[in-house]
Amino acid sequence: MDVGLIGATGYAGLELVNILDTHPHFSLKLIGSRSHDQVALSSIFQKPLRHEYKLINLEDFEASIHQLQLVFLSLPHAQSMPWVEKIRDKGIPVVDLSGDYRLDDANTYKTWYGLSHLNSTRLKSSVYGLSELNAELIANASLIANPGCYPTATLLALSPLAKNGLLNNKTLIVDAKSGMSGAGKKLSQSVLYCESNETMRPYGTGAHRHTPEIELTLQKIGARHTKILFSPSVVPMDRGILSSIYIQMDGTVDFQTILSLYKSAYKDKSFIRLIDKMPETRWVKNTNYCDIHLVYDQRTSTLIVHSVIDNLIKGAAGQAVQNANLMFKLPETAGLV
Amino acid sequence: MDVGLIGATGYAGLELVNILDTHPHFSLKLIGSRSHDQVALSSIFQKPLRHEYKLINLEDFEASIHQLQLVFLSLPHAQSMPWVEKIRDKGIPVVDLSGDYRLDDANTYKTWYGLSHLNSTRLKSSVYGLSELNAELIANASLIANPGCYPTATLLALSPLAKNGLLNNKTLIVDAKSGMSGAGKKLSQSVLYCESNETMRPYGTGAHRHTPEIELTLQKIGARHTKILFSPSVVPMDRGILSSIYIQMDGTVDFQTILSLYKSAYKDKSFIRLIDKMPETRWVKNTNYCDIHLVYDQRTSTLIVHSVIDNLIKGAAGQAVQNANLMFKLPETAGLV
Amino acid sequence: MDVGLIGATGYAGLELVNILDTHPHFSLKLIGSRSHDQVALSSIFQKPLRHEYKLINLEDFEASIHQLQLVFLSLPHAQSMPWVEKIRDKGIPVVDLSGDYRLDDANTYKTWYGLSHLNSTRLKSSVYGLSELNAELIANASLIANPGCYPTATLLALSPLAKNGLLNNKTLIVDAKSGMSGAGKKLSQSVLYCESNETMRPYGTGAHRHTPEIELTLQKIGARHTKILFSPSVVPMDRGILSSIYIQMDGTVDFQTILSLYKSAYKDKSFIRLIDKMPETRWVKNTNYCDIHLVYDQRTSTLIVHSVIDNLIKGAAGQAVQNANLMFKLPETAGLV
Amino acid sequence: MDVGLIGATGYAGLELVNILDTHPHFSLKLIGSRSHDQVALSSIFQKPLRHEYKLINLEDFEASIHQLQLVFLSLPHAQSMPWVEKIRDKGIPVVDLSGDYRLDDANTYKTWYGLSHLNSTRLKSSVYGLSELNAELIANASLIANPGCYPTATLLALSPLAKNGLLNNKTLIVDAKSGMSGAGKKLSQSVLYCESNETMRPYGTGAHRHTPEIELTLQKIGARHTKILFSPSVVPMDRGILSSIYIQMDGTVDFQTILSLYKSAYKDKSFIRLIDKMPETRWVKNTNYCDIHLVYDQRTSTLIVHSVIDNLIKGAAGQAVQNANLMFKLPETAGLV
Repeated sequence: MDVGLIGATGYAGLELVNILDTHPHFSLKLIGSRSHDQVALSSIFQKPLRHEYKLINLEDFEASIHQLQLVFLSLPHAQSMPWVEKIRDKGIPVVDLSGDYRLDDANTYKTWYGLSHLNSTRLKSSVYGLSELNAELIANASLIANPGCYPTATLLALSPLAKNGLLNNKTLIVDAKSGMSGAGKKLSQSVLYCESNETMRPYGTGAHRHTPEIELTLQKIGARHTKILFSPSVVPMDRGILSSIYIQMDGTVDFQTILSLYKSAYKDKSFIRLIDKMPETRWVKNTNYCDIHLVYDQRTSTLIVHSVIDNLIKGAAGQAVQNANLMFKLPETAGLV
Repeated sequence: MDVGLIGATGYAGLELVNILDTHPHFSLKLIGSRSHDQVALSSIFQKPLRHEYKLINLEDFEASIHQLQLVFLSLPHAQSMPWVEKIRDKGIPVVDLSGDYRLDDANTYKTWYGLSHLNSTRLKSSVYGLSELNAELIANASLIANPGCYPTATLLALSPLAKNGLLNNKTLIVDAKSGMSGAGKKLSQSVLYCESNETMRPYGTGAHRHTPEIELTLQKIGARHTKILFSPSVVPMDRGILSSIYIQMDGTVDFQTILSLYKSAYKDKSFIRLIDKMPETRWVKNTNYCDIHLVYDQRTSTLIVHSVIDNLIKGAAGQAVQNANLMFKLPETAGLV
Repeated sequence: MDVGLIGATGYAGLELVNILDTHPHFSLKLIGSRSHDQVALSSIFQKPLRHEYKLINLEDFEASIHQLQLVFLSLPHAQSMPWVEKIRDKGIPVVDLSGDYRLDDANTYKTWYGLSHLNSTRLKSSVYGLSELNAELIANASLIANPGCYPTATLLALSPLAKNGLLNNKTLIVDAKSGMSGAGKKLSQSVLYCESNETMRPYGTGAHRHTPEIELTLQKIGARHTKILFSPSVVPMDRGILSSIYIQMDGTVDFQTILSLYKSAYKDKSFIRLIDKMPETRWVKNTNYCDIHLVYDQRTSTLIVHSVIDNLIKGAAGQAVQNANLMFKLPETAGLV
Repeated sequence: MDVGLIGATGYAGLELVNILDTHPHFSLKLIGSRSHDQVALSSIFQKPLRHEYKLINLEDFEASIHQLQLVFLSLPHAQSMPWVEKIRDKGIPVVDLSGDYRLDDANTYKTWYGLSHLNSTRLKSSVYGLSELNAELIANASLIANPGCYPTATLLALSPLAKNGLLNNKTLIVDAKSGMSGAGKKLSQSVLYCESNETMRPYGTGAHRHTPEIELTLQKIGARHTKILFSPSVVPMDRGILSSIYIQMDGTVDFQTILSLYKSAYKDKSFIRLIDKMPETRWVKNTNYCDIHLVYDQRTSTLIVHSVIDNLIKGAAGQAVQNANLMFKLPETAGLV
């Protein structure tokens, strides 16, 4: 199957190329670029790949788009939206890695992203590509809004609780730590090596765009009146997210029952590992896995869920391919293990 | 004033030497060592210092202890205790950097440290050396239990609330991130470079010894029925703690009032900076400062306090010297700015 | 083909498991361990793998060794030697990742390794497994001495010159920088995170065991009276070697000719990339590739060759598998791209 | 004494502020900025300082310049030159941290810096501020060209040999490794955290501007027909330079004699430590020290000198203050220990 990509040179885009390069069913035929034209990808990204790729300009990309069976978009939000519209209007399926189609409602989009959405109908009808939750919807979708990195780690950690009503009427604390690649490749002083090395900083406490994405999804899978306080920090490493979630329990459900809900929810999921020790980001680095560990603190009746992912794989490119696999009825793990 | 030190080669001990080396009033006369005898410190710690220091064995240290006006102990817990007893029995003041005298009660000590305390009376009468909270007690103390690194960052972030009753009947979430020096110099596979670099891991969620230390101190300064869920993680950097604390508010006190409580509490405190942007550990690195920033999230009625310190300075050696300054009625900042 | 491994928990051993796990022809049937028995590898190394592996004790390993068609040994030198002897005595082929069979001569071995060799005949008859240089010998070998990490980077950078007599009667300066995984997993204070982070240090200048390994191989491929001054340093990163080699030229051969020697030598080599910009270790990280770049400095008549590899892959486990591929007449790249 | 500074927000500039903040004799009165006006330095650089500083625009700086007894310039080359001219024309002494006045000759400047020098006479009459070599000249100078970071480490490692004729007619290999702060704060993709972390890369082999600076200085202190091949690399850490220098010896001078030349040259130098073990950058981090270690490799008749400095202190701001101390006949170590 021939697929295309716009936005290959960002961190998630490069991982997409890397994964598609060895994918048994997808062949990456066209790569559209905003800033390069007729440039070998290998001149920018020197990691050895099996195939050679060329970046072409967006006009040429558009002219050949009918040859493709799927397009991945790995563009910043706002820049992705017009391309989603254009490609979907031609009837070609899209997996969009930006935040442009993750929310349901144009007003909410405007509130958190600060701009008007181009197509509120399409926004509403897109499928949120959290593969483990929405496999059936994804299999029938033509527009996938690929989840954000933090929401992926957080929602996988919470969905068994949400589905079973255990988050109703609660405010959850989500303290999430990310490596630096989450900030992308855009030039800015704060992401210079010497400004980020050997330091930690919280940012956007309570005001991060992933907040409504997490809340909306929780609600869709059954949580009622659940709010989250989302509080991210960056730490000096390349990749990895650790999401630590704190849930005040009332003592009516015991910990073993909770554990069994998780076991049941994830028993057939290839990429979720419930582990009985503390998770570490290194064990899921360069993989599409999510490791989850639960702790119950009797003293304070607090349930703590720690989950880890590679923000560029399960939190972006890997899950995008997982979703594409689901869309084309391929084995979910194709190209990913 | 002549002071002594046992335990100079651990990370906190080395910082103590470093600070005392340029201190205008203290002179580090004797350094006792468990593993070295008649060894120049410069053969182990090659950072340039103004003075030369020699490690001597503990018998020789003990024999000369009467020449000292103060002893700093930078030993692991349990190993510190007999030395505190011995030195205090001779009437010489002690600043103990271990956890051995931080709690109030021998039973609690046994529960969290797993061993019996040698002297429950002395345990009770020791003064908890959180300089900003206990300056007067410290000025009259002969045994200072120097606070743990996490409790220092956390208690400085919470004390204005605790003192004003705003933490009563609450469970607080404390998500704290630490650099690797917090783990000390003991050989263990998990702290090898390649086992700690490029990864994050939570540990001891709900079960860390700093939990009772924080709760006890909160209670002493006025918090009633306040519990904390203490949840630490390690991140790949040398030094620095970021403590992020989440407090569910009921909406009866407004944020400006809370800010003014902090301003009032810390207006004369040399080492506390209330800042109006997110704190970063790098700005307090190698200093005795604690930076604190408050955020109020209207959506979830959550008050978030982020505080940062250098775990080896304000979280250990720096605060130890600050306490010694207070004990000897010296300027609090002597040797520290 | 069923293969075995002794020493799976060191850094090179884990990479071997990782590679063999997806190898199309080799199946890792037995893993012998010095310190674990009947322990799932996944309890130690939590990276997701396709298969499950169990560590067994060395007696059990030995008892089943006849089922194997090849054994990889990833043990420290001296500890590897008796196992090589035992396994070869049973007629089973061995790829030994230690330094025990890399030199030719028991005296030289004793000089640089400080102990007597068990079998000077076998030492002499082993084949040095630098895949690109010795493919034919490897194809017919039953004992492969897998090269050291530094020698691999250095010899690949030098062999076209050596073969063409351009190193005769010269002393070469080899300044090599390595990430920390080169130091292995053995507990020692110098490899603690806080002792290695944010610092660089040279070590073993002129006295490193890789010196005779490089010199001997240069001589075997044609260099006469060539000496190297080998000078390694460690830098704070997990993996990667940069070998910078300085060769005083006499002006009789021009740079274009030299470049063409390299192009000719490596034109069919899958894992060697001659690149026209400075190499970086990140581009070969987690790969079996070696990137080489040449610079000629007219002012000083110095030829500089910079080469980079991943010390754990091309410098250890990857090359071991490459050699095994050659031994069994499989495609050289099987399991490695 | 009142001093001024232009360029406080780069890495070297910030270190200058940091040092001057506690200097016993200099008071930093004016800070001129190209991009900020009437802005508190603390809003950019949040490290606690004893004093408050304000950035003012360059016109205001110039208008008040007559109040100053010395100006430090911490600007990029080419940008520094017109300011040196302007300030020197007013008769005020300058310590220039750029490369604009380090060479002797306008043609050489043009060759290596790619632009015409504004004032070849002043270029010639400036004093090269390598404090340990030129203390007397510095004491009488009004324009100090503060040395580059690499030349400082390299020249301190070589000067005893150069002065004693032991480098005559030789080509030296200088393989120098630097932390990332050497690249400065300018936005460029290659210095983003994720582009520099976990990788090493050589750059500018044989073509770095520090080459003529080193050669010229060697010649001035006595080396005849000495060339250097200067080959730098960057490694993933904030600060520190390790310069490894390789010198082919002819066997006529023995190693003990060489050592004694170094001992004699540096016996009264406060900031030079000849050490008998391998140097590490961490021991000189945040200090004005240079640690030097010599190895003689009998096998190859090669003398190796390893030297380490903190590139921002001894390699920039610290040495600038050391030079200012010398200019004003203050103790050389004032503000630096």
